[in-house]
Amino acid sequence: MSLHGLSLLAGQPGQTGGTTFHATNPATGERLEPAFHEASLAEAGAALDAAAEAWVDLRTRSGADRARLLEAMAAEIEELGDTLLQRAHAETGLPLVRLTGERGRTCGQLRLFAQVVREGSWVDARIDPALPTRQPLPRADLRRMLTALGPVVVFGSSNFPLAFSAAGGDTASALAAGCPVVVKAHRAHPGTAELVATALQRAVAACGFPPATYSLIHGGGSTLGIALVRHPATAAVGFTGSHTAGRALFDAAAARPHPIPVFAEMSSVNPLFVLAGALGERGATIAQGLLTSFTLGVGQFCTKPGLVFVQRGPDTEAFLQKLADAVRAAPCGTMLTHGIREAFLENRGRITSVADVRPLAASAATVHPERTEAEPSVATTSARTFLANPVLATEAFGPFTLVVVADDMAELSACAASLEGQLTATVHGTPADLAAAGSLLARLERVAGRVVINGFPTGVEVCPAMNHGGPYPATTDTRFTSVGTAAILRFVRPVCYQSYPDPLLPAALQNANPLGLLRLVDGKPTRDPVVHA
Amino acid sequence: MSLHGLSLLAGQPGQTGGTTFHATNPATGERLEPAFHEASLAEAGAALDAAAEAWVDLRTRSGADRARLLEAMAAEIEELGDTLLQRAHAETGLPLVRLTGERGRTCGQLRLFAQVVREGSWVDARIDPALPTRQPLPRADLRRMLTALGPVVVFGSSNFPLAFSAAGGDTASALAAGCPVVVKAHRAHPGTAELVATALQRAVAACGFPPATYSLIHGGGSTLGIALVRHPATAAVGFTGSHTAGRALFDAAAARPHPIPVFAEMSSVNPLFVLAGALGERGATIAQGLLTSFTLGVGQFCTKPGLVFVQRGPDTEAFLQKLADAVRAAPCGTMLTHGIREAFLENRGRITSVADVRPLAASAATVHPERTEAEPSVATTSARTFLANPVLATEAFGPFTLVVVADDMAELSACAASLEGQLTATVHGTPADLAAAGSLLARLERVAGRVVINGFPTGVEVCPAMNHGGPYPATTDTRFTSVGTAAILRFVRPVCYQSYPDPLLPAALQNANPLGLLRLVDGKPTRDPVVHA
Repeated sequence: MSLHGLSLLAGQPGQTGGTTFHATNPATGERLEPAFHEASLAEAGAALDAAAEAWVDLRTRSGADRARLLEAMAAEIEELGDTLLQRAHAETGLPLVRLTGERGRTCGQLRLFAQVVREGSWVDARIDPALPTRQPLPRADLRRMLTALGPVVVFGSSNFPLAFSAAGGDTASALAAGCPVVVKAHRAHPGTAELVATALQRAVAACGFPPATYSLIHGGGSTLGIALVRHPATAAVGFTGSHTAGRALFDAAAARPHPIPVFAEMSSVNPLFVLAGALGERGATIAQGLLTSFTLGVGQFCTKPGLVFVQRGPDTEAFLQKLADAVRAAPCGTMLTHGIREAFLENRGRITSVADVRPLAASAATVHPERTEAEPSVATTSARTFLANPVLATEAFGPFTLVVVADDMAELSACAASLEGQLTATVHGTPADLAAAGSLLARLERVAGRVVINGFPTGVEVCPAMNHGGPYPATTDTRFTSVGTAAILRFVRPVCYQSYPDPLLPAALQNANPLGLLRLVDGKPTRDPVVHA
Repeated sequence: MSLHGLSLLAGQPGQTGGTTFHATNPATGERLEPAFHEASLAEAGAALDAAAEAWVDLRTRSGADRARLLEAMAAEIEELGDTLLQRAHAETGLPLVRLTGERGRTCGQLRLFAQVVREGSWVDARIDPALPTRQPLPRADLRRMLTALGPVVVFGSSNFPLAFSAAGGDTASALAAGCPVVVKAHRAHPGTAELVATALQRAVAACGFPPATYSLIHGGGSTLGIALVRHPATAAVGFTGSHTAGRALFDAAAARPHPIPVFAEMSSVNPLFVLAGALGERGATIAQGLLTSFTLGVGQFCTKPGLVFVQRGPDTEAFLQKLADAVRAAPCGTMLTHGIREAFLENRGRITSVADVRPLAASAATVHPERTEAEPSVATTSARTFLANPVLATEAFGPFTLVVVADDMAELSACAASLEGQLTATVHGTPADLAAAGSLLARLERVAGRVVINGFPTGVEVCPAMNHGGPYPATTDTRFTSVGTAAILRFVRPVCYQSYPDPLLPAALQNANPLGLLRLVDGKPTRDPVVHA
């Protein structure tokens, strides 16, 4: 399967002739063929205009139709076989076993959204039948459901070349909602993106959807990104990446004549608290689990625990020692790109250069910069130093964590109170610890999107109850998750139909309930048909 | 019951000594006592800080507790009796019968939200129990529910002194969600706001909620409003009013270091299409209904139909004649304020001064400017003129509507295609008309929040299926309604609890389902307890 290096715009290959770029194998430094051609702003705009046309069709397609499309997409991705895995491996340096798992997750979430839209009750259908004889005024027949917002621009992430990229969670949830998708491919894995986009386009064609249901755009820099956000046809934006880039997209969207929502998942240090009882009871186990969690994927997860708070006590030193031992024994790993490694070293350096931040341990293995490697490391400091230096609460995206030692519970609480919005927060405690930690847990609930007890935050399950999102700066819109079935709610808005003749209503709202949805009728959930309406 | 003219800040009266203002009776021009004292920015900030403290308590109060508070608020408002109605009548010029109805709606929506939170399933509880033996990886126990965002700033509207003001829909839905509320009272009815706020504060005290659960602030100009939006403790904003003011609040919120959502309901012309068959079959009835709708409340409803599209045909002239007759026979009415009347005359003038816009009729009654009166009027123009002059699609908030006559269905469609976001859109048609109008209806669904068939858009039912919101510029966030039970969803975000011991979970998520909620367990809706978890 040879790559053409072109954007895929509403089923058509993009133009050549502009700027080109190559992917690089981070594990070898090798330049990977072919050259990729950046799309022009005109091409990108045309793809969005075509997507707006496609939306008119997509938004009224049945859930069954959309489910078939999502399932066909999953099958086409699987059909790419090892070609996809090999290219992703070359472009990202991620191990094949990880990529195999990530492909499973990618296809799994496409199929999960297929289930959701085939079942259909997610549209939150609400029916208040007419009350023609009500006094003092009759009530008109009112029926409401959620409908697709319009074309969604998705920015592929660096760290999930499959599960949060060309056919990732944003794409799956937007298509499920009935929104056409225009993906801006991440420049670090353009070949992976092309393969996936080609597979998706095959599914689009096979299922009889308009070609502009899905487009993939190659390009770079902020100009194209901002142009995509500003384009009048764009109705919403999904993004996973840095705070700087996410905020720039958010600002551009808010400044539009007609503002649109931006779902940017940006930065989180994912604080982890180890309470005194747990430290004594199983400090060594926690240290090992922490090592595994903060070095997973070479620390390149948005849920990586980057801050660990412990209370000074008889077991603190032993815990630090165990953690140091584990870190020293940990291997180095190839990071996704040279730029990510540089940023990691810089951000880690800003943290470790603060006075009273002491290095605790680093991997004993030789680190190979020419393989884009970084070594796991951990540093430690006091709560007082942490509270006095806001930089210590910033994210260093890579295999590093900072252990903050508090003198007492009051200091630990002060640290918790100082935290900004987070994707996750974690507490390790014995039942007695937890019983005494009510106000800490309550604080973490207010600051984080997901609170974990006696576990680790990495490993984000794709399921109905997941919440991957949190107060700013973790995300730009804390009201929504980007992982799990509720992610579909980002790309819809309610429409109310008043006094519609039954046959003109969407099937979801018709009296007979032909789709068998769970609906709110007169305020009561039911799958029964509406009678006498 | 005498008014003190002070803000009510976390249960305490505000300071005197700053700028004061008076309300004016628009029907007489009389200055109404007492003087109202504008709150300082420091006072407003302190109220928000106190609200943030109160939130820590409120967010975990049971639905039953919050329901009792909302019901006590409704009872206390009713307890104000005629005093409230008389003051509102004096401040707004609205007839007592209207205000009596609006009080019913106000107390009704407080009680409706009480029902919603007492029943409790609105929190969208989702439980995915642990799968410890799943391969290749176990699944942790994951439970998610919606929780309160934080303090909400509400800007009272001019045109609903009760139902969208101190204790209006924004206040009711925010309190129901568990968010403390700080209301910026509208300057046109400060005495009404004080009476209501005093009643609410009595309910807060009686129900044992923190005094900062509710505050009312008097003030003016954009400085205070922007300061309220920028205050770090503010988590969300509800607003009903002009596009200029709403956009300014939105921009301020988006420019915050930590952006927050603004739910501004701003402007809508609520296009109404009369198709040819309906025009022939019941043009006179439609003309009469249209007159009633666009002059209701002296045209001061956000759902007032301000644009009417008809197709030129044998029945068009008769329809226009009937409408003209009805308008000529309609009485003049007192508008809410001198400023609103001035803005109405100016905006109507901008529309009627466009070349080829012809006056069709105006009320034959004498208009009394000293009573702040405006006369119902209607003008007409061609679709060609409409399409060439975007000003004709702007809102004139008052008793005026513009009838646009299209030469054919293609022109009608072009008009529909040119429309910006709307709260509502309406179509009158016979079954045959409607059967042929699929693409028009589909277009209106995409542009409006509520589509009405063979009815009129004024009269917004407060119920589960209502949607009062629409694409920009109708509102700043088309994903949410400001009327009906779904309005509570504006003020919440999901929190996911991972691997929590059952007793530490919120009641909504505990295994036994002690609240009896409808929950999504393993993706399936059920009220059953969770077993073996």
